[in-house]
Amino acid sequence: MPESTWKIISRTFCFLLIPIILFAEVSGPSHSMMQKMELLVLQLGVIIFVAKGMSILFEKIKIPGVVGELTAGIIIGPYFLGGIPLPGFEHGFFGTYLALNPGATLPVSPELYGIATIASVLLLFMVGLETNFSLFLRLSATGVIVGIAGVIVSFLVGVWTGMLLLDLPFLHPETLFLGVISTATSVGITGRILTERRKMDTPEGVTILAAAVIDDVLGIVLLAVILGMIPVLNDSGQSVNWGYVLRLGAKAIGVWLLFTILGLVLSRRISKFLKVFKGINVPAVMAFGLALLLAGIFEKAGLAMIIGAYVMGLSLSKTDLNYVIQESLKSLYLFAVPVFFVVSGMMVDLSVFSSRTIIFLGLIYTLGAILAKVLGCGIPLLFRKFNLLGALRVGFGMAPRAEVALIIAGIGLSAGLLSRDVFGMVIFMSMLTTVSTPPILDSLFKKEKNGTTEELLPAENVVTEFPLPTLETVEFVSAKSLQLFRDEGFFINQMEMAHKYYHIRKNDIFITMICKPNGINFESSPDDTQYVKTLMYESFVELNEIINDLKDITKPESLKNDFMEGKDDKR
Amino acid sequence: MPESTWKIISRTFCFLLIPIILFAEVSGPSHSMMQKMELLVLQLGVIIFVAKGMSILFEKIKIPGVVGELTAGIIIGPYFLGGIPLPGFEHGFFGTYLALNPGATLPVSPELYGIATIASVLLLFMVGLETNFSLFLRLSATGVIVGIAGVIVSFLVGVWTGMLLLDLPFLHPETLFLGVISTATSVGITGRILTERRKMDTPEGVTILAAAVIDDVLGIVLLAVILGMIPVLNDSGQSVNWGYVLRLGAKAIGVWLLFTILGLVLSRRISKFLKVFKGINVPAVMAFGLALLLAGIFEKAGLAMIIGAYVMGLSLSKTDLNYVIQESLKSLYLFAVPVFFVVSGMMVDLSVFSSRTIIFLGLIYTLGAILAKVLGCGIPLLFRKFNLLGALRVGFGMAPRAEVALIIAGIGLSAGLLSRDVFGMVIFMSMLTTVSTPPILDSLFKKEKNGTTEELLPAENVVTEFPLPTLETVEFVSAKSLQLFRDEGFFINQMEMAHKYYHIRKNDIFITMICKPNGINFESSPDDTQYVKTLMYESFVELNEIINDLKDITKPESLKNDFMEGKDDKR
Repeated sequence: MPESTWKIISRTFCFLLIPIILFAEVSGPSHSMMQKMELLVLQLGVIIFVAKGMSILFEKIKIPGVVGELTAGIIIGPYFLGGIPLPGFEHGFFGTYLALNPGATLPVSPELYGIATIASVLLLFMVGLETNFSLFLRLSATGVIVGIAGVIVSFLVGVWTGMLLLDLPFLHPETLFLGVISTATSVGITGRILTERRKMDTPEGVTILAAAVIDDVLGIVLLAVILGMIPVLNDSGQSVNWGYVLRLGAKAIGVWLLFTILGLVLSRRISKFLKVFKGINVPAVMAFGLALLLAGIFEKAGLAMIIGAYVMGLSLSKTDLNYVIQESLKSLYLFAVPVFFVVSGMMVDLSVFSSRTIIFLGLIYTLGAILAKVLGCGIPLLFRKFNLLGALRVGFGMAPRAEVALIIAGIGLSAGLLSRDVFGMVIFMSMLTTVSTPPILDSLFKKEKNGTTEELLPAENVVTEFPLPTLETVEFVSAKSLQLFRDEGFFINQMEMAHKYYHIRKNDIFITMICKPNGINFESSPDDTQYVKTLMYESFVELNEIINDLKDITKPESLKNDFMEGKDDKR
Repeated sequence: MPESTWKIISRTFCFLLIPIILFAEVSGPSHSMMQKMELLVLQLGVIIFVAKGMSILFEKIKIPGVVGELTAGIIIGPYFLGGIPLPGFEHGFFGTYLALNPGATLPVSPELYGIATIASVLLLFMVGLETNFSLFLRLSATGVIVGIAGVIVSFLVGVWTGMLLLDLPFLHPETLFLGVISTATSVGITGRILTERRKMDTPEGVTILAAAVIDDVLGIVLLAVILGMIPVLNDSGQSVNWGYVLRLGAKAIGVWLLFTILGLVLSRRISKFLKVFKGINVPAVMAFGLALLLAGIFEKAGLAMIIGAYVMGLSLSKTDLNYVIQESLKSLYLFAVPVFFVVSGMMVDLSVFSSRTIIFLGLIYTLGAILAKVLGCGIPLLFRKFNLLGALRVGFGMAPRAEVALIIAGIGLSAGLLSRDVFGMVIFMSMLTTVSTPPILDSLFKKEKNGTTEELLPAENVVTEFPLPTLETVEFVSAKSLQLFRDEGFFINQMEMAHKYYHIRKNDIFITMICKPNGINFESSPDDTQYVKTLMYESFVELNEIINDLKDITKPESLKNDFMEGKDDKR
């Protein structure tokens, strides 16, 4: 960062700190509601800046920002810097709750944890929304096989590592949780790398995305099953009534399936209901309200919040509200989600890592988690026309575990099902898989070799091209046609890429518009090309009318004098 | 609402309620962190829907939505429906905290109150941002006089009502709070009515807006002074060391003034610092982070959160980030702010109103609050070329008290400075002033008579007109010129009005663009008209080039065949 930036930052913060010095007041011993609120507001402010700062710093050295946020949490958390007494904060800036509630399962206040919880609901709601449901229904057999194999292998490896390392039986909550946690791929980091290297539409990219969908769904189902079974496991300890356990598991799958189907069947009604609220932002906030309700209801019913949030997201994913919601909830997301990651980091008791055993166990668990995906996803691919390079690309692409793993681990910790040591192991694994994946993937994709033994993926979408003379005309025509699409009730979402990409969708129609310097391309299913053409024809007709109207006015010569003299009136 | 809407709503909610029935589990007696979170998430979901539902319902019968949200809070709050035991919620849906903490000053959990607190910081940050600072500096003498007179009179009337009704001395926290609370005009409701009736730029509208700015600033200063003085008042009871009190008050004004000046001086640096974070949403969230920090620091320093939040908003109000922040934080606002109003309503113990005395006191306080503004703002106007009608319009326009009054009352309640009875009185006053103002204002503005004895308001802004033949061409040219403004670093904000209004601003330049069916008008200061003209000239030149490029392509005859045959390629 240039020196001037530091100057700006330091001056901004000096500005913030003066009032305390000027108006210092000694706070009383009681921890009243106002003091809790004061602490909450200060903590949130600090978290937002520390999280962003660390995330930027880590991204500078090519490490995903999430890892920076987790690290920030560990550093400023109650077990480390946040526990050091400061003037005005006798138990440290983040240590008050832990100091006043030494027996608590979580070291942060319910106020702060509440924001993190809301963020986790929002996160899984977004994951649900991002599930490309039509892709899910048309998934290639390869994607399904890879996804299922990856989940099974990593679940088993997770459970097995738990059994071996912690000396616990198979059907123990802690081992089962370690199993579920290691299934949950976070495809975001892989997605960013694929997008940067423009490999999203390669066979590897498509397979990773498809497998990630399967992965999310199966992960949620597994979590439901295990949460359904835990009451019995806790009671009986070692000797397990298998029939009962299986019945409970089946019931959990049943509930999940019922809700997912109901959600999908009712999706149009729900979307219609949300549109009762006018505007763009209000329906989005209401949709999030529904996600909160279903999350709370699922939790109340003994499952987990995130399952409800995911089901609601999935239900709305195929409606035309999808992109509107995602776009509109961005600021809420940017505010809350870093709080979730930082608070997750705060749960880590660093003293856990002073024991070499935990570091060793964490490393083994990490290695197991990576190998499980590389082997589980990679080996089936070798039988599906992928070569070794392709199999490795997909396998490592599925290796990162982040938000979902952390949320599940947090559920385990707060319910007292995971010990603090094991939670530390999970954070360790999550950080390591996330840090190690980008460089490996980068080097695997650097070689411009194909990952398949023959050309896969027959073209499904049709490209319709409209060549145009200049970039300016492209912008002009695209603005007009986007407006026509909007008038027709389409929702439009601009992607950030080299060219201007627009996702244009209404109900089942999904069109991609790509503005290149020399023309506009549309990608759509063959059925929709006629629609695209008619709409473009209309755009051109309207443009022509406008041009005829404007032709005479915009002759620069006739304008210049007029303008420079001006014909302004006093009001 | 049509019957089908009800069907949609009822089916959506059935979908939500099934899991509890299917997977019902009896929750244990302990109130663990997970149970708190479950309750928080459910409560938030319910609050979002009840708040919106009531707000829509109330607006149907022409009552401001805020009143609906407050009413929703009273109805579902722990003192009323929310306290009734339900299966699964033994203390009622909102009653758990009150039942487990019978001695608590506030009847809601810190988790839920935390969201409301964050919302109050966001609210005052937005109020600060919306303060038109250049307007403030160029305020007409009339606006200043009206604002100051309104604040002084309503403060005195508030204090006096408190003294008389509650039999307390002048310098008692409760009376002083009642005074501050009754100063805080909420101009939002008046603003909406003025906008609907297109009276925003009448002498009455301009005076109300100017007075409201003064009102906000003085209200914040008064709050700072009184919070600064309270430690002494509490100690000494009846006999007061006036010198000390005044010294503390002066110190509080000093701190406020110092920060406001510092904030304004550093505003460019702060805005520069925020722009270090790329994108649109991230700087906005970071700006809110700064508001949280300054809010917490002010609270820590013995002042109040909202003062810090307001100062930060005011600092950023004259930077070009202003509209970006307001636009970007919309979803956070729509999520959090209704929670604030509903939670405010929840604080009201309905049993308070069972005593006729409180209703009577509330009515007197309300009447005093309205009269204070009508007389305090109205009488000076009679000496400033307004007639009686104009004076009444401004006076009643300043009468509604909502968010700021509620926040200040909440501060008093949670700090134990206001009793629950007096808090109930304040809510009563806030609801009554808000409900009664719209119909009165409406009828006062219905008469198309002038409110002034002669024509006031010499034209300050200059209108530059660009006539265009059709609405289509207007859209076209405006799109191009908006793009050029954007390229020049301007921030653009579209207002929702009959015509398309755009606020275009960068640093100190403030231009309004109005797209009418027959042309584009710009309103700007005389200094900026040349800039507008040059930019429009550039737009026309660029448009001309594009037209020349497109002229041949868009001839419909030549296109039609081409399109209908299609020139699509398989990918």
